Amino acid sequence: MIGVSVNGFGTIGKRVADAVAAQPDMSVVGVSKRSPNHEARSAVEAGHDLYAADADRLTEFGARGIPVAGTVGDMLSASDVVVDATPAGVGETYRDRYAEHDIDVVYQGGEDESVAPESFCARANYERSFGAEATRVVSCNTTGLARAVAPLDETYGVSSVEATLIRRGGDPTQTDRGPINDIVPDPVEVPSHHAPDLRTVMPDIDVTTTGVTVPATLMHLHSVTVSLDADPDASEVRERFAAEPRLQLITTASGCEGCADIQEYARDTGRPRGDVWENCIWADAIHVSDGRLTFFQAIHQQADVVPENVDAVRALAGTADAGESRARTDETLGVGM
Amino acid sequence: MIGVSVNGFGTIGKRVADAVAAQPDMSVVGVSKRSPNHEARSAVEAGHDLYAADADRLTEFGARGIPVAGTVGDMLSASDVVVDATPAGVGETYRDRYAEHDIDVVYQGGEDESVAPESFCARANYERSFGAEATRVVSCNTTGLARAVAPLDETYGVSSVEATLIRRGGDPTQTDRGPINDIVPDPVEVPSHHAPDLRTVMPDIDVTTTGVTVPATLMHLHSVTVSLDADPDASEVRERFAAEPRLQLITTASGCEGCADIQEYARDTGRPRGDVWENCIWADAIHVSDGRLTFFQAIHQQADVVPENVDAVRALAGTADAGESRARTDETLGVGM
Repeated sequence: MIGVSVNGFGTIGKRVADAVAAQPDMSVVGVSKRSPNHEARSAVEAGHDLYAADADRLTEFGARGIPVAGTVGDMLSASDVVVDATPAGVGETYRDRYAEHDIDVVYQGGEDESVAPESFCARANYERSFGAEATRVVSCNTTGLARAVAPLDETYGVSSVEATLIRRGGDPTQTDRGPINDIVPDPVEVPSHHAPDLRTVMPDIDVTTTGVTVPATLMHLHSVTVSLDADPDASEVRERFAAEPRLQLITTASGCEGCADIQEYARDTGRPRGDVWENCIWADAIHVSDGRLTFFQAIHQQADVVPENVDAVRALAGTADAGESRARTDETLGVGM
Repeated sequence: MIGVSVNGFGTIGKRVADAVAAQPDMSVVGVSKRSPNHEARSAVEAGHDLYAADADRLTEFGARGIPVAGTVGDMLSASDVVVDATPAGVGETYRDRYAEHDIDVVYQGGEDESVAPESFCARANYERSFGAEATRVVSCNTTGLARAVAPLDETYGVSSVEATLIRRGGDPTQTDRGPINDIVPDPVEVPSHHAPDLRTVMPDIDVTTTGVTVPATLMHLHSVTVSLDADPDASEVRERFAAEPRLQLITTASGCEGCADIQEYARDTGRPRGDVWENCIWADAIHVSDGRLTFFQAIHQQADVVPENVDAVRALAGTADAGESRARTDETLGVGM
């Protein structure tokens, strides 16, 4: 049984904690939170032991009637692996503390790649983190790209990738971010940081990415062109994608015209928090001409890295190989169902 | 003096009428309007003779106190060229009437390419419409692509183009169109109709386009990758673009972070209606790697075809070659200033 703690119980942390709790080979030692807000309360209601990020804020939790089991140090002492789900850039500041506790660490993609010896996508390079002391799960967009490109590279060979990432302005609760009624190159630099980030998990891929931010909160949408070394027809590519549990083929004929339809379907089918763990690829759009494949995929920024975090825990623990881990994660969560 | 009438005084028609009125070699015979609304009133206030699209609606104009000079038939009889700016698909229904009046016709990109023997972009294929009886100015997005690709093809040779068009949901007044808080593949088919449309003016270009619609009204934004036969550096491409009056280089350093900044600048500098006739290309984003050029451009959907319509009138009239016409149009309107 791998004892896992989750440092930071926000958008990613709360989802990872629930996903870890569903694994037969893992237990949630505890979760930590800086502020005694509604998310802290929901952690307790979900049955997680809650630890305060700061000892001097313990009384604040008490004042709000939120029971706390101790502070982060106590939590780390009792864990085999910590998933760092603190805000981007904060994980780095915890590195020394994690080392003091001699604990394995899964960082998130908001950290610089130098935070850990490896970066991680379960479909692309699980083995690189096997038995390691730390790894970094790449960001939602990079995870989405790696999942789609890895099987294409294995099956057909990929000579180059060009992707335009149409990014949501913020998550549904980040209503202060914008843009309002605008389309913004973000970043304006080409390639965007997603291209070098993809190379942290697939170092041999020739990739160019551009990013554009728009007034939407639900999902990211990628328009991707992949130059293949082979020239399969579109139906072959559809079958290839369909064989990957973390790639979900959707169609406009079934009513999935945009991201909102995908999210509605996830809620209707009882997904926790309406989460979409899979890349959603429009089957109608898959197009190949002279070995140049073009497709659209939607990426749920709050959810797609959750199964990756679970797999990363197993990789560091060294208790399962990539195929075993992915299959167990997918089955327990219901990925690809 | 070329006598020009404008059939349809909506988003495009009102702009074309004003642009034609500014030309030393053209006069506005009149403009026509179906509904006696505020746009009809503004036509009269702008000094245009107004004609009613339907004889049986003449009394409606009178009842609103909007003076009318006659009906469309009267207007066409007095004109050398008509610019058809009726809604998409309606232009086709006027074709027989235009033929009866033996009048040259400029159609818009909302019509099927079969409406006229040629399609038109002043930078790409002006000569094809020289002295012809009818031509079709391609749509705003296609015009934007052709203007950027034509000089690249002449200077470096273009082997292929891939463009993701992030499309505004509607014009500022089309507030019933949506999407709201969504990112929608539109059309979901790849390539989108823009690729074959570009080939109506640049038949030899290997082009793939994808379209995505977002909750914004100001401009379209293109993320474009062009595979060149040469390998210029980014600064060379910047200079090449800068030499084209209808391509405007902008920078985030100057404060142009998104489409809203571009529009604000156009209003601040006194552009009529805040119109942006040029493709706005972010100089900071221009990137070339192994002959693969990537850049962002913003396209003002209400305005970029306006100078093209003026040039199309001259092409049909056969009174100026492409360079002369573009220079005259740009100088009178202030394009590229």
